[in-house]
Amino acid sequence: MAVVTLLSDFGDRDGYVGAMKGVVLSRAPDAQIVDLTHGIPAGDVPCGAWALRVAAPCFPASAIHVAVVDPGVGSDRRALLLRSNDQLFVGPDNGLLSWAVDGGARAWVLDRPELFAPRVSSTFHGRDVFASVAGHLAAGREPQDCGTPTESWQRIPWPEPRVAGDEIIGEVVHVDGFGNLITNITESALAPVVGWKIEIADRALARVELTFASVSRGAWVAYVGSAGLLEIGVRDGSAAAAGLCVGAQVRCLRR
Amino acid sequence: MAVVTLLSDFGDRDGYVGAMKGVVLSRAPDAQIVDLTHGIPAGDVPCGAWALRVAAPCFPASAIHVAVVDPGVGSDRRALLLRSNDQLFVGPDNGLLSWAVDGGARAWVLDRPELFAPRVSSTFHGRDVFASVAGHLAAGREPQDCGTPTESWQRIPWPEPRVAGDEIIGEVVHVDGFGNLITNITESALAPVVGWKIEIADRALARVELTFASVSRGAWVAYVGSAGLLEIGVRDGSAAAAGLCVGAQVRCLRR
Amino acid sequence: MAVVTLLSDFGDRDGYVGAMKGVVLSRAPDAQIVDLTHGIPAGDVPCGAWALRVAAPCFPASAIHVAVVDPGVGSDRRALLLRSNDQLFVGPDNGLLSWAVDGGARAWVLDRPELFAPRVSSTFHGRDVFASVAGHLAAGREPQDCGTPTESWQRIPWPEPRVAGDEIIGEVVHVDGFGNLITNITESALAPVVGWKIEIADRALARVELTFASVSRGAWVAYVGSAGLLEIGVRDGSAAAAGLCVGAQVRCLRR
Repeated sequence: MAVVTLLSDFGDRDGYVGAMKGVVLSRAPDAQIVDLTHGIPAGDVPCGAWALRVAAPCFPASAIHVAVVDPGVGSDRRALLLRSNDQLFVGPDNGLLSWAVDGGARAWVLDRPELFAPRVSSTFHGRDVFASVAGHLAAGREPQDCGTPTESWQRIPWPEPRVAGDEIIGEVVHVDGFGNLITNITESALAPVVGWKIEIADRALARVELTFASVSRGAWVAYVGSAGLLEIGVRDGSAAAAGLCVGAQVRCLRR
Repeated sequence: MAVVTLLSDFGDRDGYVGAMKGVVLSRAPDAQIVDLTHGIPAGDVPCGAWALRVAAPCFPASAIHVAVVDPGVGSDRRALLLRSNDQLFVGPDNGLLSWAVDGGARAWVLDRPELFAPRVSSTFHGRDVFASVAGHLAAGREPQDCGTPTESWQRIPWPEPRVAGDEIIGEVVHVDGFGNLITNITESALAPVVGWKIEIADRALARVELTFASVSRGAWVAYVGSAGLLEIGVRDGSAAAAGLCVGAQVRCLRR
Repeated sequence: MAVVTLLSDFGDRDGYVGAMKGVVLSRAPDAQIVDLTHGIPAGDVPCGAWALRVAAPCFPASAIHVAVVDPGVGSDRRALLLRSNDQLFVGPDNGLLSWAVDGGARAWVLDRPELFAPRVSSTFHGRDVFASVAGHLAAGREPQDCGTPTESWQRIPWPEPRVAGDEIIGEVVHVDGFGNLITNITESALAPVVGWKIEIADRALARVELTFASVSRGAWVAYVGSAGLLEIGVRDGSAAAAGLCVGAQVRCLRR
């Protein structure tokens, strides 16, 4: 039984998500539909790319991921199919898929209208292109029979932190729903993590803690999060509520 | 494997949606549960009717759709089962189902207590009536064995636009989660769509565009949306944010 | 086919929920994943406990429920597996599971690292511990092979109403998404329900009604809700909007 996951910015007051599910099941009646999330902020491609990166690697090989955060729908942006670690990814060629696949991913441009809806709308390729192709894939069609191989497709550059002597300068790459700030600074760059103090905006955190419970309620805390990256949060609260957002600079200073 | 979809205004901080799913699976353990959406604004029957209309036609025949936006729960409003294009629809008889079925739909009043929960609450027919009957249907029970045929059931009137010479006067019938305004004016009424300018509130749009990307960011745009209807939106923004809502008048003037 | 339900406070803009689903399916590819809800307010354990209590009893025996509202993640709070009425419950030992199981529930502490992710993060046990164990359970592993039996685990005390002569003094135990106030006063404590008037804050309600439709739009109404408990709401409106929340006192006076 094929697993087809869905991620989008379609929110929860419309039939758009349901329409996509219906199209997949029309092509592959035995597929299991699994929602990743549909609450990505409208048009926020990096936020969607991050959520997909967090979720996709946990799925078994053969999972088919459909991701639609697609502000350029109807323009000349291409439709993309990627294969990475035996998982398949379908979505717009705008970077959305780029953080969830590895360097050896194979790519195809989806250019076979016979795999799309009979009439493709100019505003809802999630239904007419991506879900349709995903349904065909779930029904057993091979990726190479869905499009034309390509080497060039859009990647969102991952911002690498700068290392200068006893200092690492990174930035916030995602703010999660709890208000935790996820940075681009890896655990291995900090090893051992006990050796650093952290600065963000006008705050200084004396050390990297093990977890939230290491500090008192309402206190700021730096820790290595579930993605293996340095995060900054507030215990039982929200660091984002202080006005910090993606791109905010984070400095690590050797103690 | 039967597919049972769920749509409601139950939101996301309660166990109501989960309770319905449990009831369906108790009756039909092999059913696949598929969420359409549970974020319909509380009691907003037309919004739910529209979302169901968008999603349901994409599903394969034999899908069973359970829809619950039910401000009259516990009153004498009836419980309804419709069959249209071999799909089944279960919900309150308040118009919620009416836009998703075609003119030849058959209807039954759900009046067989043995198909309901042993004790039916006065406030949660989603669990005690609709999910219960849907579970029986998913387990193979025939529609005609679930209730009494009826010819009279509630339909929400579809507001037809007025055509007067070189002018079409329509209205907004749905505001989607992106803030796009979906009107009741069909693509075929406009054919060819290039021949019209559009007015809404105090705004004039010089033409109907192909898609959002045809205009600059932040600009208003009229286009034919994924339902085959004229829509008005703002590229990378929200037309609804200007205060426009369902019922707002839209004028199309021949250029 | 095992059914695995998920409940959390992870919200809808991240990949956390998707990650948990992927882990379950990696261990048990044929499991059906069913969302209860992921909109529990961040860290609100009693709200999650209530939602689980509402939903879980509706599921068939053998359902596996994974619940994660876990502000103490990474601390020394234990991980728990409960069995009640042939259903299984997996989650943190912080009371979250306590309202959904009965007095005869059996309990195990999850203490077998070989059933967890190879490396357990300090902030996301939903993925690394709970979903992982649930996947093993869904794949057929027995509860007693997942941990060490325990008699002592966290329960959230259920606040019992006080009965004094012709008066019952209870309180609000949950506010639902519609703004209805659910109290701890049972229908049987009120039998017959027609014999009481209700007071909350500075409002007096002359009687307990059958349902919302018994009063006019915008009026306050007391009724027995779908959990068999006294509730107070506003027809087509929200009682919570008046500032009432969990813990608010409710008095029932014999008429």
